Amino acid sequence: TPSTKPIPRPHWASLHTEIETHLKQAIPMKEPLEVFQPMHHLVFSAPRTTVPALCLAACELVGGHRHQAMAAASALLLNLANAHAHEQLPLTDRPKPRPGPAHAYDARMELMTGDGLVPFGFELLARADEPTHDNSERILRVMIEISRAVGSEGLQHAQHMRNTLESDGKELSHVESMKRVAEKKEGGMHACGAACGAVMGGGSEEEIERLRMFGFYVGMSQGMLQRGLIQEAKEMKNMALQELQFFKDRDLHLISTFINF
Amino acid sequence: TPSTKPIPRPHWASLHTEIETHLKQAIPMKEPLEVFQPMHHLVFSAPRTTVPALCLAACELVGGHRHQAMAAASALLLNLANAHAHEQLPLTDRPKPRPGPAHAYDARMELMTGDGLVPFGFELLARADEPTHDNSERILRVMIEISRAVGSEGLQHAQHMRNTLESDGKELSHVESMKRVAEKKEGGMHACGAACGAVMGGGSEEEIERLRMFGFYVGMSQGMLQRGLIQEAKEMKNMALQELQFFKDRDLHLISTFINF
Repeated sequence: TPSTKPIPRPHWASLHTEIETHLKQAIPMKEPLEVFQPMHHLVFSAPRTTVPALCLAACELVGGHRHQAMAAASALLLNLANAHAHEQLPLTDRPKPRPGPAHAYDARMELMTGDGLVPFGFELLARADEPTHDNSERILRVMIEISRAVGSEGLQHAQHMRNTLESDGKELSHVESMKRVAEKKEGGMHACGAACGAVMGGGSEEEIERLRMFGFYVGMSQGMLQRGLIQEAKEMKNMALQELQFFKDRDLHLISTFINF
Repeated sequence: TPSTKPIPRPHWASLHTEIETHLKQAIPMKEPLEVFQPMHHLVFSAPRTTVPALCLAACELVGGHRHQAMAAASALLLNLANAHAHEQLPLTDRPKPRPGPAHAYDARMELMTGDGLVPFGFELLARADEPTHDNSERILRVMIEISRAVGSEGLQHAQHMRNTLESDGKELSHVESMKRVAEKKEGGMHACGAACGAVMGGGSEEEIERLRMFGFYVGMSQGMLQRGLIQEAKEMKNMALQELQFFKDRDLHLISTFINF
């Protein structure tokens, strides 16, 4: 008998839960437990970001099925979990400890566990290769996208800029500097997430670039909001909406949840 | 006119130099300099290991050309450089600082620079894809090999075991424990390097597995020697020699340099 339940309004958090479910199966709780337990902890206790969910939504917007983007979304989540864990590490020469909950494991454990998450993310992508579906070129392209977004001209550069601002005591005073950090961090990671989803879903080059810009503005809007720049956040949200015009004949329910915050 | 110079005896260090030359081109010294300078430093100041060179030699032994394995060798070198940098990090709860040269950069810089090396290694592999040569399946397979060798059941597990032994004060007293660490560290990484080279060179499954075992024994022999276990090192070297019997009709000059130490 067909269900008579109303169709629930889609929400990015439900996509995020699907990715976590996928990762719980991909990271079994097995021996050596002293290695896999902290791995679970770092992955599932990291603050949620909308980046992995956006990857799935972008895949569906270009006509793909979300399972096609699941490995890419998982790799993004794992890379972000490592970045978060390493930002929290107690280093002897960090000027001040970052606020946050107490550490569940010692620093060496969190350091090397985080280290393990990144290659594992690329492994999940490599294993998503299905020779019958001829998707290896898409997978390799997504790997390059993710490497660049988290690497020396992306997230790593953002962390460096933030550290420099902190050391100079300028963290909360310089709007232009904060914008540049957000461009590489929230902006760059969301741009990457949306582009990767579009690639895995078989989007055209124009669809991929439109979704990359949409993701960039979504991330910038969040980044501005988190830094208390309300007016800038609104402007970025409007820019994101404009990018969606290109897809106005599609079902925009799912992708719209990323600007309804 | 043909050269009259004698053909120099091959040595693994010349292969290593080729990999470094390749990486110097792949990691340009460009803006942001504050990110790329420490990247160069961590990559080229890390202690040399024979793992990347073994990857090239294995590729040639199965009939490939070493340039086919250059990206895999580079990814291995980058992963090992990150592991080394992170082992040296001054963490507040590390029981005793590891001996070594003074740090060129502050700990946060070395932490995130190391972080950037790992995805960059996978990016180099992804970019080595040549659709005309149909090598994407080999590349994806090598990515899985490297992820597992450095990950939670490989190098990461070795580091954990070593930390536990150090904390218990047992580091230098327990031969069986040292062997288990070496199996995951030197043994596992050399096994991976040789297997990856054989995969990229188009080796058969049997050639890949023979070279994996050869690499394992080469690494174990080094690991035993470094821990002062001379008799065990000799045994492992003999095991490595036995694996080479399978290739006795090939030119063994290059691969033999990995057991002539």
